[in-house]
Amino acid sequence: MTQGPASPSPAPSPVTRLAARAVLQAPDAKPFVGVSEMVRERGKPFALRLGANESPFGSSPRVGQAIAAAAGRVHYYGDPSNHDLQMALAAQLGLDPGRLLVAGGIDELLGLAVRLLLNPGDVAIASAGAYPTFAYHVQGFGGKLATVPYRAYHNDLDALVHKASTLSAKLLYLANPDNPTGTLVEPDAIRCALQQFPGIILLDEAYADFAPGGSLLNATFTHPRLLRFRTFSKARGLAGLRVGYLFGDPQLIQLLHRIRLHFGVNNVAQAAALAALADTSFLQQTLEAVQGGKQAYRDLGARLGLSPITSHANFVLFDCGTPTTAQRIHQRLLDLNVFVRRAHTPPFDQCLRVTVARADQLEDFAKALQKASI
Amino acid sequence: MTQGPASPSPAPSPVTRLAARAVLQAPDAKPFVGVSEMVRERGKPFALRLGANESPFGSSPRVGQAIAAAAGRVHYYGDPSNHDLQMALAAQLGLDPGRLLVAGGIDELLGLAVRLLLNPGDVAIASAGAYPTFAYHVQGFGGKLATVPYRAYHNDLDALVHKASTLSAKLLYLANPDNPTGTLVEPDAIRCALQQFPGIILLDEAYADFAPGGSLLNATFTHPRLLRFRTFSKARGLAGLRVGYLFGDPQLIQLLHRIRLHFGVNNVAQAAALAALADTSFLQQTLEAVQGGKQAYRDLGARLGLSPITSHANFVLFDCGTPTTAQRIHQRLLDLNVFVRRAHTPPFDQCLRVTVARADQLEDFAKALQKASI
Repeated sequence: MTQGPASPSPAPSPVTRLAARAVLQAPDAKPFVGVSEMVRERGKPFALRLGANESPFGSSPRVGQAIAAAAGRVHYYGDPSNHDLQMALAAQLGLDPGRLLVAGGIDELLGLAVRLLLNPGDVAIASAGAYPTFAYHVQGFGGKLATVPYRAYHNDLDALVHKASTLSAKLLYLANPDNPTGTLVEPDAIRCALQQFPGIILLDEAYADFAPGGSLLNATFTHPRLLRFRTFSKARGLAGLRVGYLFGDPQLIQLLHRIRLHFGVNNVAQAAALAALADTSFLQQTLEAVQGGKQAYRDLGARLGLSPITSHANFVLFDCGTPTTAQRIHQRLLDLNVFVRRAHTPPFDQCLRVTVARADQLEDFAKALQKASI
Repeated sequence: MTQGPASPSPAPSPVTRLAARAVLQAPDAKPFVGVSEMVRERGKPFALRLGANESPFGSSPRVGQAIAAAAGRVHYYGDPSNHDLQMALAAQLGLDPGRLLVAGGIDELLGLAVRLLLNPGDVAIASAGAYPTFAYHVQGFGGKLATVPYRAYHNDLDALVHKASTLSAKLLYLANPDNPTGTLVEPDAIRCALQQFPGIILLDEAYADFAPGGSLLNATFTHPRLLRFRTFSKARGLAGLRVGYLFGDPQLIQLLHRIRLHFGVNNVAQAAALAALADTSFLQQTLEAVQGGKQAYRDLGARLGLSPITSHANFVLFDCGTPTTAQRIHQRLLDLNVFVRRAHTPPFDQCLRVTVARADQLEDFAKALQKASI
């Protein structure tokens, strides 16, 4: 997470003493710096925007049509129950609609799940270097986050479960396919973890669309202590619209209805997501293009001596060998107007995470990376 | 608030016992039934949709252009700091940007403010029959809501302050102009309440644009224990896009940055709100049309013996004399395909709240109301 400005803050006014305990104890931090914040800071856009796993393949043409139609009814409140989208998702996944909840992206849903399940002081477990917004919510609701190192760029699920039981953790967060590595955990390992860990597993499947068939738990696999999170931000190309969904135990979902933000998904986003969901051939095109792009990245990495980790998402993590090398390449890429991510938590400080580019961007990226890594 | 389905719920599964205390103690309710939920239930749209204070005057033509432009970049994440909108709002209000926070509508901001300020068990005060989403958030975060009756369709601020001090309340919620009455509290009365009440006043100014000049506290009035909430949903006609903002003490705002949802306002909504904000002449037209519509409602109410309460918002509350009369007229209007609101909390059970209609809708509404009230 990114700490707030280091400048000396003014003495706290008496009014901040009125704040709730959980908020006063939370760190003065935000999960990460957004792309648009970096662009504003630099004063110019990136030539290649490959650091936020936004889809350079865009979204279905039907999305544009749906947005144009929805633009005429923005003065009307949208549907607080996200009914049509919920039904369409449930049908596509083969789930009872009561097992599914739509909200404003996985970020909002992770916050809701943490609020649903964590009492102040409760412990949650995640891999060290996992998606920082989970840690942000845990700390923001007064929980404590404990972490376990990755093992050869894989989530070490055994160690996560072991640490979780040592600390009597309430929640275990796992991204699958993982971010920032792109690696997978086997369905059997997750089933086994559910048997061993008595708390609730939050399974972040933001990159599920990119995973090979059969590599994930079936959508219809049910377990009362498993909540799964998916999004329209990645393969569907709707990152800017904020639509995600959660599925799992219907009684937990019913409790979420007591605390969720009812009008959180705006009416343009609902219409766009519904249109995106219906266009399976656009999704297929995107997935094929991502496969091709990953092959190109593997070749490129091998050629430049930057080891690519085998990825089942829409990005590739390149291991640059040392933090110093990664930092140097990262800085040079920024100087060349190319945005990729380098994290600070080891071992990711020696890595660069690069979103798979479109075919027409590949040559430019290859040139820039070659130049930066000399 | 609306209770959940009364059908016998299944025995709680062991997993719900894992839920956090605040959620288990919260009522199984939602703030209110949305228009689109009513439409779905009925199976047909309303001919006149005048029950949710949506603006029948729509939004600025510039909004449509902004949405069309933003549609091309929905695959990119929006700006998590809502920077451009924050700056534009701060400039228009004459505020330091650090005093202002943008989020997904007043609903989200009320939830954030409650989370910021209420520890479980803390008390919040509001008028009985005030905006139900405030109560929803208070109960959802483990707080307790105490209420004070309206007095002749005005918030009884003295009584609210008195009850707040009796109960050592932490928060006092006041809507000004009020919903559902449309009445105003004088700026001096709010200043006085801030002196007497040691907690924080949440001032919901969703309808501020409609209030006569000089009738509200200046935007630049500062007090550490006052948070003010405004929205693009009403006069700006963007209810479906979910954009609101809060302004007040910069140190409280800084604490809100520890817990807010960073990508909550989507990029289409940010662009649309910025466009709407710039079109002051469209706003002016809307406000004039609302004035004219209110005059027509006053005449109509007088003619039909339904006393209109003088309103400083974009709706008029009609006092039908008795709950039975109000219920009968309400039902007849629904049968005529006309949506207006009737609340259940006395004295609003004897009232109908009707959004000001466009000139071209007025005749139809007048006919329907006449028919319904015979």
